[in-house]
Amino acid sequence: MTTVSTAASRPGLVMAIGGAEDKVRQKLVLRRFVAEAGGPDASIVVLATASEHPETGERYADLFYGLDAGRVEVLRIRTREDALEAGPDAFDMLMDASGFFMTGGSQLRISSALGGTPLAALLRRRHAEGMVVAGTSAGAAVLSQHMISMGESGGTPRRRLVQMAQGLGFTPDLVVDQHFRRRDRMGRLVTALSYNPEPLGVGVDEDTAALVAADGVLTVLGAGGVTVVDASGLRFTDSHAIHRGQPIAMLGLRVDFLTRGCRYDTRRRVALAPQGVTAEQTAADLLAIER
Amino acid sequence: MTTVSTAASRPGLVMAIGGAEDKVRQKLVLRRFVAEAGGPDASIVVLATASEHPETGERYADLFYGLDAGRVEVLRIRTREDALEAGPDAFDMLMDASGFFMTGGSQLRISSALGGTPLAALLRRRHAEGMVVAGTSAGAAVLSQHMISMGESGGTPRRRLVQMAQGLGFTPDLVVDQHFRRRDRMGRLVTALSYNPEPLGVGVDEDTAALVAADGVLTVLGAGGVTVVDASGLRFTDSHAIHRGQPIAMLGLRVDFLTRGCRYDTRRRVALAPQGVTAEQTAADLLAIER
Repeated sequence: MTTVSTAASRPGLVMAIGGAEDKVRQKLVLRRFVAEAGGPDASIVVLATASEHPETGERYADLFYGLDAGRVEVLRIRTREDALEAGPDAFDMLMDASGFFMTGGSQLRISSALGGTPLAALLRRRHAEGMVVAGTSAGAAVLSQHMISMGESGGTPRRRLVQMAQGLGFTPDLVVDQHFRRRDRMGRLVTALSYNPEPLGVGVDEDTAALVAADGVLTVLGAGGVTVVDASGLRFTDSHAIHRGQPIAMLGLRVDFLTRGCRYDTRRRVALAPQGVTAEQTAADLLAIER
Repeated sequence: MTTVSTAASRPGLVMAIGGAEDKVRQKLVLRRFVAEAGGPDASIVVLATASEHPETGERYADLFYGLDAGRVEVLRIRTREDALEAGPDAFDMLMDASGFFMTGGSQLRISSALGGTPLAALLRRRHAEGMVVAGTSAGAAVLSQHMISMGESGGTPRRRLVQMAQGLGFTPDLVVDQHFRRRDRMGRLVTALSYNPEPLGVGVDEDTAALVAADGVLTVLGAGGVTVVDASGLRFTDSHAIHRGQPIAMLGLRVDFLTRGCRYDTRRRVALAPQGVTAEQTAADLLAIER
């Protein structure tokens, strides 16, 4: 085993990306990940376990090199056997990494392959030591401790609309959902909170990222929005009692729709308006992104 | 003109029905309307202006007779000319009515035909005197003072996702949307509130009714849910500044998902859990409705 620096450190930034991030124009979200990981000094590891396509890892490596990342490596874990048999090369790669990126696909591929392995433990330790961790689509879902693994679309909560599984736990206080608006997922996110209202629900739109800093403050970047649902004040639900497909009563939710520049203090559970920019400037910036 | 009783009176119940209400099995929602209008003593007037189908009015009349309504008449208003030229028969019909029912179709057909006519004024007066007023689908939308006239689907607010028009104003403090879950309308309801957060947003699912009593307490009836959005605490929005299709920031919303038996005090703006029934009983009742 490689030894680890025990110097005082803060956890690295977490970037939950809602999928379908721009890869051909301004690449705002991916560019930000490379910059946060150190830019020309970055050492980035890409995990494409979620994807069915063998070229996905290389595709992101090319993208990150195109954004002037210093070094990019692809960690090849297709199966649980791969994860269990990962050798010193894999561990060394992560010990050197300043940024870790998980691609889209199926979040259960990631959690079922890596869950409970020394590799998953090392990933969490490296994050605690400051490694930036980003995930898009399935890679965003698996950031959660209590992860949305599957579900159906719909705007309001229904029994069995969502299935949960344990994720990798980089953001233990959040349940992250993705492709949020495009796939009409308010209902499944809220259904997850009806089972246990403790975590904060975070729904991230496509080409959008929720950046969660070490102090727990979430900032929105990109063309879409981030929907935050705080169910901790829930006063009544019947989710334990009703039957498959029935609508769930949930009284006492707080919801904030955040867009670019808006922030949310996940510890105090309060939304914060953009700082030092007017709404008109934000709109002009968004237009520029779209062009 | 017919004279009107000036005896002290309370406004009649308002029933906002989300469309596609059961017409062949238990007919829970329509049955409740007939009962509230007086059952065998009811004198019901059906307005099918919203519908393109000439037989819609008679279809509801048959349904209400099948539910033992005392008397049902169809008020034939196809155009604004019809509304302006409505004769003493129409006014007498409404003076005698204990219940008024608006069918689905297009809410703009109703508002553009009836808006500003003596007939619309009489409808509001009769409601203030106690006449029960119900509307399904388009007929529910037009209950609002500030009415959602058109829009697009989506779970989160976007610029120009919704178009507004003046409705008939039976529920001046509410913006009612319908087919809520089925047509993914959270986004357009919330967008409407971003323009002016004063009214309460009420999204009614299919085969479900929001019953609003004279004291402002709303009760849910039927197989689906009613989503209530209180934006009066909105602390920030950029809806005035952003461009077409861009996501809107809205910080500080309160949302309650109500199901059968749940209530909401629209004056105090607080959701109330079902009274005197357990969640298990509610679930069993819902199963019975579904069968």
